[in-house]
Amino acid sequence: MLRSSFKTLSAKAAAQLDQELMSTGAFSIDQLMELAGLSVAQAIYKQYPPKKSCNNTVLVLVGPGNNGGDGLVAARHLKLWGGYDPILYYPKRTKNQLYSNLVTQLHDLDVNELESVEDVKRLVSVPQAGVDLIIDSLFGFSFKPPIRAPFDELIRYLAENHDKIAPIVSVDIPSGWDVDKGPTDLDINATMLVSLTAPKPCAARFVDSSAEKIHYLGGRFINPKIAKKYDIEELVDLYEGNELIVKFV
Amino acid sequence: MLRSSFKTLSAKAAAQLDQELMSTGAFSIDQLMELAGLSVAQAIYKQYPPKKSCNNTVLVLVGPGNNGGDGLVAARHLKLWGGYDPILYYPKRTKNQLYSNLVTQLHDLDVNELESVEDVKRLVSVPQAGVDLIIDSLFGFSFKPPIRAPFDELIRYLAENHDKIAPIVSVDIPSGWDVDKGPTDLDINATMLVSLTAPKPCAARFVDSSAEKIHYLGGRFINPKIAKKYDIEELVDLYEGNELIVKFV
Repeated sequence: MLRSSFKTLSAKAAAQLDQELMSTGAFSIDQLMELAGLSVAQAIYKQYPPKKSCNNTVLVLVGPGNNGGDGLVAARHLKLWGGYDPILYYPKRTKNQLYSNLVTQLHDLDVNELESVEDVKRLVSVPQAGVDLIIDSLFGFSFKPPIRAPFDELIRYLAENHDKIAPIVSVDIPSGWDVDKGPTDLDINATMLVSLTAPKPCAARFVDSSAEKIHYLGGRFINPKIAKKYDIEELVDLYEGNELIVKFV
Repeated sequence: MLRSSFKTLSAKAAAQLDQELMSTGAFSIDQLMELAGLSVAQAIYKQYPPKKSCNNTVLVLVGPGNNGGDGLVAARHLKLWGGYDPILYYPKRTKNQLYSNLVTQLHDLDVNELESVEDVKRLVSVPQAGVDLIIDSLFGFSFKPPIRAPFDELIRYLAENHDKIAPIVSVDIPSGWDVDKGPTDLDINATMLVSLTAPKPCAARFVDSSAEKIHYLGGRFINPKIAKKYDIEELVDLYEGNELIVKFV
């Protein structure tokens, strides 16, 4: 079986499914984001367990929407578990209460923030001491180009320096990629992808681009009827026991 | 070390901590209930993994408040993981949207409900075929006696027949017990207890009552400052790695 022969959800189908979960499905965004972010943190713990030899600094790049919220939740669990030291870069905030609550929860855990793309560049470029892992929770399945400032400069910098910086874990889509079509000229160059609910079409391009790309599925919350309706029953069946994540091999 | 020599939170302190999490802590009830219920399901999975030889029917007794909500969330995860077949008894509902949402999520998973204490009695009394496990999510740390109908009859029945029915897993407190003082004459006779955030004083009485009592801690979400303020840092330190639960031994 090809590594990329998994079922996917297009940007449109993913948006529809999300809407369905929160309307007839009666889930709250708080619930879904908590479970999604927790699964991102679990995948990171499994793939990059904290090492005794370093600070395990995790730079969390937070976008303006739900993808960013998933990153905020993941950062909280990583910090709470101990061993990781997350630091945020969250330049474009909404006034939505949920997001400011998630930030308060992180401040209460003494998670710090970077102020500018310059700060990010400075931190990630310190060899062996700056950042051990980067979470890309900038854009999700509702992303549409073009990428606006300061995200364009940020992604361009990371793309151009990817062989000198820490591995990047992308949440749901590698930021800068087209959700359905895949790579564009702005590619964050992620090492690992955590697809939520179902891989988006660009995930197949991601794993096909190199044998070293790592791919997890998380966000285990849809019921069999929805899985059937969206033709992703195969994916739901991949999870074992009470696991919140599964690694594609 | 005595099995019961753990730090505890009195009913009053637990209520205060909860209030603090949801005010200055900026957590929503949806978030906390999702994490608490998930940890209850994880503890059940660890202690009573689904068996191939039976239906793994789990009767979930749901009370009118937050403890009941934790049970509803736990039931959803158990059903979603496959292997378990939860069935609800939820006689006293509030109009709160969160609870009706949690029930909708269960209905969408084809989880059924019992209508009366008589139905419960009938189902639990079928030898080897009725119910394999019972979740007692009737009352939590805000419980104050007396127990009203139909819960009085329900708990009395379970107490009087405990040697003939499936093991009972209590969420946070064994229902009928006084949160601080422990057993009363109405004792649901739980086999396992999942303490949330911190054991309540009655948990010490629970484990001291028999060497066979099983005790887990779940609800891993408080930050070190709150843990220090409420003098329960020892408990927070018990969790290993990314585990959402820990078993007291």
